Amino acid sequence: MQEFEHLERPNVPGLDDILGHPIKVLDDGFVRVVDYMGDDSSIVQAARVSYGKGTKKLRQDRGLIRYLMRHHHSTPFEMCEIKLHVRVPMDAWRQWIRHRTANVNEYSTRYSIAIDAAQRTAPDQWRLQAVSNRQGSEGFVDPERGVAFTEQETELHDTARRIYSERLEAGVAREQARKDLPLATYTEAYWKIDLHNLLHFLYLRMDEHAQYEIRAYAEVIGKEIVARWCPMAWEAFMDYRVNGTTLTDLDSRIIAAIAAGEPERAVDIAIEAEILPPRGEERKRNMEREEVEEKLRRLGMKIPWE
Amino acid sequence: MQEFEHLERPNVPGLDDILGHPIKVLDDGFVRVVDYMGDDSSIVQAARVSYGKGTKKLRQDRGLIRYLMRHHHSTPFEMCEIKLHVRVPMDAWRQWIRHRTANVNEYSTRYSIAIDAAQRTAPDQWRLQAVSNRQGSEGFVDPERGVAFTEQETELHDTARRIYSERLEAGVAREQARKDLPLATYTEAYWKIDLHNLLHFLYLRMDEHAQYEIRAYAEVIGKEIVARWCPMAWEAFMDYRVNGTTLTDLDSRIIAAIAAGEPERAVDIAIEAEILPPRGEERKRNMEREEVEEKLRRLGMKIPWE
Amino acid sequence: MQEFEHLERPNVPGLDDILGHPIKVLDDGFVRVVDYMGDDSSIVQAARVSYGKGTKKLRQDRGLIRYLMRHHHSTPFEMCEIKLHVRVPMDAWRQWIRHRTANVNEYSTRYSIAIDAAQRTAPDQWRLQAVSNRQGSEGFVDPERGVAFTEQETELHDTARRIYSERLEAGVAREQARKDLPLATYTEAYWKIDLHNLLHFLYLRMDEHAQYEIRAYAEVIGKEIVARWCPMAWEAFMDYRVNGTTLTDLDSRIIAAIAAGEPERAVDIAIEAEILPPRGEERKRNMEREEVEEKLRRLGMKIPWE
Amino acid sequence: MQEFEHLERPNVPGLDDILGHPIKVLDDGFVRVVDYMGDDSSIVQAARVSYGKGTKKLRQDRGLIRYLMRHHHSTPFEMCEIKLHVRVPMDAWRQWIRHRTANVNEYSTRYSIAIDAAQRTAPDQWRLQAVSNRQGSEGFVDPERGVAFTEQETELHDTARRIYSERLEAGVAREQARKDLPLATYTEAYWKIDLHNLLHFLYLRMDEHAQYEIRAYAEVIGKEIVARWCPMAWEAFMDYRVNGTTLTDLDSRIIAAIAAGEPERAVDIAIEAEILPPRGEERKRNMEREEVEEKLRRLGMKIPWE
Repeated sequence: MQEFEHLERPNVPGLDDILGHPIKVLDDGFVRVVDYMGDDSSIVQAARVSYGKGTKKLRQDRGLIRYLMRHHHSTPFEMCEIKLHVRVPMDAWRQWIRHRTANVNEYSTRYSIAIDAAQRTAPDQWRLQAVSNRQGSEGFVDPERGVAFTEQETELHDTARRIYSERLEAGVAREQARKDLPLATYTEAYWKIDLHNLLHFLYLRMDEHAQYEIRAYAEVIGKEIVARWCPMAWEAFMDYRVNGTTLTDLDSRIIAAIAAGEPERAVDIAIEAEILPPRGEERKRNMEREEVEEKLRRLGMKIPWE
Repeated sequence: MQEFEHLERPNVPGLDDILGHPIKVLDDGFVRVVDYMGDDSSIVQAARVSYGKGTKKLRQDRGLIRYLMRHHHSTPFEMCEIKLHVRVPMDAWRQWIRHRTANVNEYSTRYSIAIDAAQRTAPDQWRLQAVSNRQGSEGFVDPERGVAFTEQETELHDTARRIYSERLEAGVAREQARKDLPLATYTEAYWKIDLHNLLHFLYLRMDEHAQYEIRAYAEVIGKEIVARWCPMAWEAFMDYRVNGTTLTDLDSRIIAAIAAGEPERAVDIAIEAEILPPRGEERKRNMEREEVEEKLRRLGMKIPWE
Repeated sequence: MQEFEHLERPNVPGLDDILGHPIKVLDDGFVRVVDYMGDDSSIVQAARVSYGKGTKKLRQDRGLIRYLMRHHHSTPFEMCEIKLHVRVPMDAWRQWIRHRTANVNEYSTRYSIAIDAAQRTAPDQWRLQAVSNRQGSEGFVDPERGVAFTEQETELHDTARRIYSERLEAGVAREQARKDLPLATYTEAYWKIDLHNLLHFLYLRMDEHAQYEIRAYAEVIGKEIVARWCPMAWEAFMDYRVNGTTLTDLDSRIIAAIAAGEPERAVDIAIEAEILPPRGEERKRNMEREEVEEKLRRLGMKIPWE
Repeated sequence: MQEFEHLERPNVPGLDDILGHPIKVLDDGFVRVVDYMGDDSSIVQAARVSYGKGTKKLRQDRGLIRYLMRHHHSTPFEMCEIKLHVRVPMDAWRQWIRHRTANVNEYSTRYSIAIDAAQRTAPDQWRLQAVSNRQGSEGFVDPERGVAFTEQETELHDTARRIYSERLEAGVAREQARKDLPLATYTEAYWKIDLHNLLHFLYLRMDEHAQYEIRAYAEVIGKEIVARWCPMAWEAFMDYRVNGTTLTDLDSRIIAAIAAGEPERAVDIAIEAEILPPRGEERKRNMEREEVEEKLRRLGMKIPWE
């Protein structure tokens, strides 16, 4: 049988330093690292069993991790695992657990009394409905109006909590008494996930279109935790995923026409794809055209139909 | 190449009859079958590719399905799939989506205004906290008190809804305005799952320890829908899963001693396992002993230490 | 914000001792523990967030773990994770990876030359087809015949390997050259899984109906590794899962009739359920009846129709 | 309660026409559609419950499907499900079932005698190891040499099969007798998967870096089956996924410099990112630089360091 050396578990001193320490999120939430398994070297170790020993000399660890990330070779990243203890408003938690590839133990309000805290909003933090997209928010409500909303919020929280307590005192089952607590009530959970799926979660939830509340958690998990835990994987993720851009076939053809110095051909391509009306006709709003324009701007290219 | 006959999709007339029709659950919820794939014959078809053609003559379909269920051969049951449209209080939905092996599209209160309905409780439906177990409910609050709770509930729902509307009118983003709606607010979703995982869901959620609200949905899905869709699988599930009993090693040894006419030996076994104190010492409550006693009662056996 | 103590990662000295050491399986396979996360205390920690702090005083850790196992509360067991490096014949590996809830990085024979070893069979280890069930094996081929089979096996392995080498030397792509290697060729992989899913794997693969080869791996993983890693969970798993028995509704009714001293009623129940023909008619083989009889024997009960 | 219309299951005449008909792949494999659930309209239906009713007027079905695909909104695509019956060499099947999000029932060679066919290679189909990448193949072995290889292959298949038969005749258990069959032996399975996960499978397996054998299956499933089943989703998948390009942050910065007419700045960016040595130093092969160059060529841009 082959010889193998005795192993020690890989450990990350920078993460060990903060193990168990809560990092504050929102007004009363937190994220704590409870345990972890593996580090950047575990990604490399797993990749090498797949891609053979010869690779060992050819590429350094960082280069290999970057190669894996660029080429969506995801299984080596699954070899790292992390366990967090989080405290989150139930409303954000509802979005959170839509990610199905994690292990979860949530605080049970059937067994225990609900946590006596709901997310509160500062007067200057009432966000306005976004005009540019149907799901997000942008800008803030006038702070004077905000003061009134915050007072009303406090009052509603107090009323809902008082009713909850009255029900419990009258012997109503915890599982039923809780039914009218606000969605903003905090819950807690242990949440365990592998690095590949965690990065996918962060990709979606650090996005500017994600809701502010869950984005706040994603940014802490990414920048405070993953960046310490697996710095090479984190760097590659930022370069190739977060700061990457996806070009559709149409984008590529338009860019190629512009690069060839033929902006009118780029316009023709856009017309043919029906993201732009025939010349002379009135332009309506078109989402795909707006996306093309955004990418052209990012690449420093002149929009040929403007 | 082998010859194969042209196929038609299997269909179940009894289920086709109710396709799209909402079945009412709770005060304002429902379950509708939107689509399905496969039936009892699909389970058999899949089992036969695994277990070979020889089996075709040996066993009839019903016998094969029962055999598969009894022996936890789960993959053939995964070959049937169903899609439901459900309307559920968010609080029950939080439990529902803990089952990770389903496909889900939920109504978005970021894109749309929240459904204007929250689960309401009739005066005689306020349940008392269970004494026998820490998580459930048993019995009801005195109806006079219930009348007051129901009024209070209506008032709280109205207040929370009014505040939600005021926020929307002031331009607050939908994703934030909803934060203080009660957990009992209804949501809707398309939920798609295979039969094996659906039966596992029903096993857990039809159980008497499951919360009343989700149990109400599970019973409708099981008895009104699965029983029509795959009647043989449903029958086997009831016989072998729902009405089955699991004996631990300790249970088996105690039963064997009783069956051998040696109740004192059964007591010795219980003492040795520390679910019963030594003879003469005071008995404290012990959960495992209570479970043994419940199984002995179910099997019509005298409890040897009573 | 709440106060929390600094944490250390839980570690298990008994497992640390063997970290990286290969445990031999079959003629040339092995299992090595490469890393792990959590221990028995992590199960308890997760259960307590779900079931509340009050439970802390009521039950000791062992009792809680046993309760969770008995009641199929599986999520706390998902909080422990282990990573193994295994070397397995491809034929057993094909069964192994049917368990979908693990992370896998397998040795790639597209990138690298296939491992130069295939599982070999000692002359006294050629197993006979089971008569009692259609899938298993029982007893052994006459050893003299076995000697011939083993020689033939060696020759076939050598021929297949020689052909593989000739193809490679002629420049044939590795991905195609390997196509005629025997199924018994060894492969290697990193395999990472949580404790709940590992125990489910072991439950199925330690079973006497599992194929000998994969059972050999399951027994090593269970008895040498899990028993060291999470001894309380392992003990509970053996008591409640491996040595447990499932009674169907029919089993329970037959046992109850026997326990009530009414064996003829037990016979009636069996006849009604069609696992036994009406009295006086000839008995054919019936799988469900055989299963009932086996359980009665296990419980030390006389079979009423014998 | 809301009113709902009676529903009919969506059906796709073009797919119904070929239901059950095997489509040939490789020398002796096939893919047959056995059943399916949903069509393009089911994607739209699910998206609308998530994104609200208002969207109904704004966008047409095709536009909505394209929007969902472009923005990686994957859950509506999970609402379509398909079941295939496939016959595949075990070697390709080993890759196939690495995709864990499908339901599988495979032909069991423990219950039944192994399928008497292994993938055979025509003399002009022996592929050479790729030079440009370590895992693939390119070009073919000289056909004269190929004739010899094909003869040798046939002989090896015959020998392995004869040994298998001799073992069976001597009573060796099927589960053990099969151990030295070639990896190229055909197996069969029912394979059921949702459209989102199927498209992910096709994205990886239709790729030019995928092994020829599995690519042959992927192309049939994509072009012959998905294109008929959900033509709008298929078109969007081709435009945005298969023919899409991912730009890393580095790619974008280099393209922006070129588009701004500053090729020397593009060179500086490449040097700073260490994909290009400082001016005047010798260039070594660099994988990331080659990838950048390939994208520039695709966009019709001049490579600034050539």
